[in-house]
Amino acid sequence: MKQLWLFNQINSDLQRVEKELTKFVETDYPILQDSGIHLLTAGGKRLRPAFTLLAGKFYAYSLDKLIPVAMALELIHMATLVHDDVVDASLTRRSRPTVKANWGNIVSVETGDYLLAKALILISQINHPEVSRILAEVSVEMCQGEIQQIKASFDVEQNLKQYYFRIKRKTALLISACCKLGALVSEAPRHQVWALGAYGHSLGMAFQIVDDVLDITAKPSEFGKPIGGDLRQGIMTLPMILALQSFPSGSPLHELLRKADKTDAEVAETIELIKGTGAIDQSMRIVDAYINKAKKHLQDLPKVSSRKALEDLAEFIAIRKF
Amino acid sequence: MKQLWLFNQINSDLQRVEKELTKFVETDYPILQDSGIHLLTAGGKRLRPAFTLLAGKFYAYSLDKLIPVAMALELIHMATLVHDDVVDASLTRRSRPTVKANWGNIVSVETGDYLLAKALILISQINHPEVSRILAEVSVEMCQGEIQQIKASFDVEQNLKQYYFRIKRKTALLISACCKLGALVSEAPRHQVWALGAYGHSLGMAFQIVDDVLDITAKPSEFGKPIGGDLRQGIMTLPMILALQSFPSGSPLHELLRKADKTDAEVAETIELIKGTGAIDQSMRIVDAYINKAKKHLQDLPKVSSRKALEDLAEFIAIRKF
Repeated sequence: MKQLWLFNQINSDLQRVEKELTKFVETDYPILQDSGIHLLTAGGKRLRPAFTLLAGKFYAYSLDKLIPVAMALELIHMATLVHDDVVDASLTRRSRPTVKANWGNIVSVETGDYLLAKALILISQINHPEVSRILAEVSVEMCQGEIQQIKASFDVEQNLKQYYFRIKRKTALLISACCKLGALVSEAPRHQVWALGAYGHSLGMAFQIVDDVLDITAKPSEFGKPIGGDLRQGIMTLPMILALQSFPSGSPLHELLRKADKTDAEVAETIELIKGTGAIDQSMRIVDAYINKAKKHLQDLPKVSSRKALEDLAEFIAIRKF
Repeated sequence: MKQLWLFNQINSDLQRVEKELTKFVETDYPILQDSGIHLLTAGGKRLRPAFTLLAGKFYAYSLDKLIPVAMALELIHMATLVHDDVVDASLTRRSRPTVKANWGNIVSVETGDYLLAKALILISQINHPEVSRILAEVSVEMCQGEIQQIKASFDVEQNLKQYYFRIKRKTALLISACCKLGALVSEAPRHQVWALGAYGHSLGMAFQIVDDVLDITAKPSEFGKPIGGDLRQGIMTLPMILALQSFPSGSPLHELLRKADKTDAEVAETIELIKGTGAIDQSMRIVDAYINKAKKHLQDLPKVSSRKALEDLAEFIAIRKF
């Protein structure tokens, strides 16, 4: 697991989440065990559990209550990743082959279902009606976002509203839930649960836009997956939609973005065209706006150390390279 | 929806389940709406909701409590079907093209996830810790069964224990849960919840064995899916495992069952070899044993009309042709 310095104050607790997760997904079924552990050890930043713990830090911080919630959130996240890889036909993620690449669609579908079922076990143990309801609602919305993404792929006519609609469901709602639920099970006052949810929402939007920008601008060695993945899959991201606005319809950029099987040279050409329009800077200005919004939502919260961590995290999102 | 005459006493209630299900899976997302409705209208016998309602009939029958449970169970069942179709690469089910055949793997994965997420919404509304726990545990076991099936495919060395292990997870546990939960939310005494669960378990085992026999013996026009599907997918079923015992290892039957891409002629030859061993009759005797066991579990239950229906249902399982 990559340790972010931003998580210093919860490092040992995050490690406990990690240990419990590993133990919890253990199974006697060799394929499932291998694919599950492969996913877990592929790491990721454990951003979601971190948000839950940091949100809990404001109030009656109880690891016993927070850990199952953090685990359920990470399991839902992992399950959607492994299912999205079937959907997106992705072969690498976080610099490693995906479950799909190693074991194929079949095992990917089952691994995702298994992780979701394990999340369900945790949810039933947590036994908190509002936690269950929020996780259920987020799960439904996430599917709708994914379906929308499939439907809108290679559609160069789509607008910004559709894009925001999609990334809200793809990323922001779950991160928002992480913050909200961390506060909720720590007995935070109602309006602060809401504020933390709003923080997570804005931060999640920023996070996804940065991800979409990095797909065009990152160094492959730092990014952990091939550059131009969205371009190849026909996922229209903010920089693409903004760049398209600089050209009349039917332009070379329109044609390239619409094209299903792009050659490497075409991907490179598309990237150059997008960069040339200033759409990257424009996108990063929108990121900044979301970051500022996120930080504003923190202002009404108690001035404890995790507030500083969440502020720093928001700053970090905008400058991250991976 | 095919109406079974056995469900006469709950027909109007089953129709309400059907109506509520259709309303509940409705979404503004065209692809999801189409694939969801396609699955729903493909029908099936709605066996699982029927078990839940019939189990509830013994006690404090409350449709308001039973319907969400019945719906959640049917949604979980439908989700596993649509995901299994990705896994099995099935192109027809119940005489109609599968979601996978019409929309591909991507939409199948998302449709299944969507149905599961909707089930989660119901579970959170039902807000009954034991219902949540049982459904979560069954979901985990079902994934493990499916994984086991993948692992054991084309393996002619597997034994009966492995087969029973698998069909328990594939079918029996969910049917058992249907009966158990119907009783549970209707305030049945503890030991009767258990008895209904045991009934459902035995009946589910019988049901799956009959399904496996029909895959070899059925008339395609009655069966709703192509004959020999298990043979082609390398799923080793009871009649196959029993038939293999009549031959030394390395026999033509061993070779045929081990072969991945069978021609139509090879499938036909395999079916004839299996039929020739008496494995079909042997399998049906095992079905009868399960049916008798199922009926025995009913004996301690109140003598109400639904007890007769569950007995008849058990009888019907053994003679069904579809």
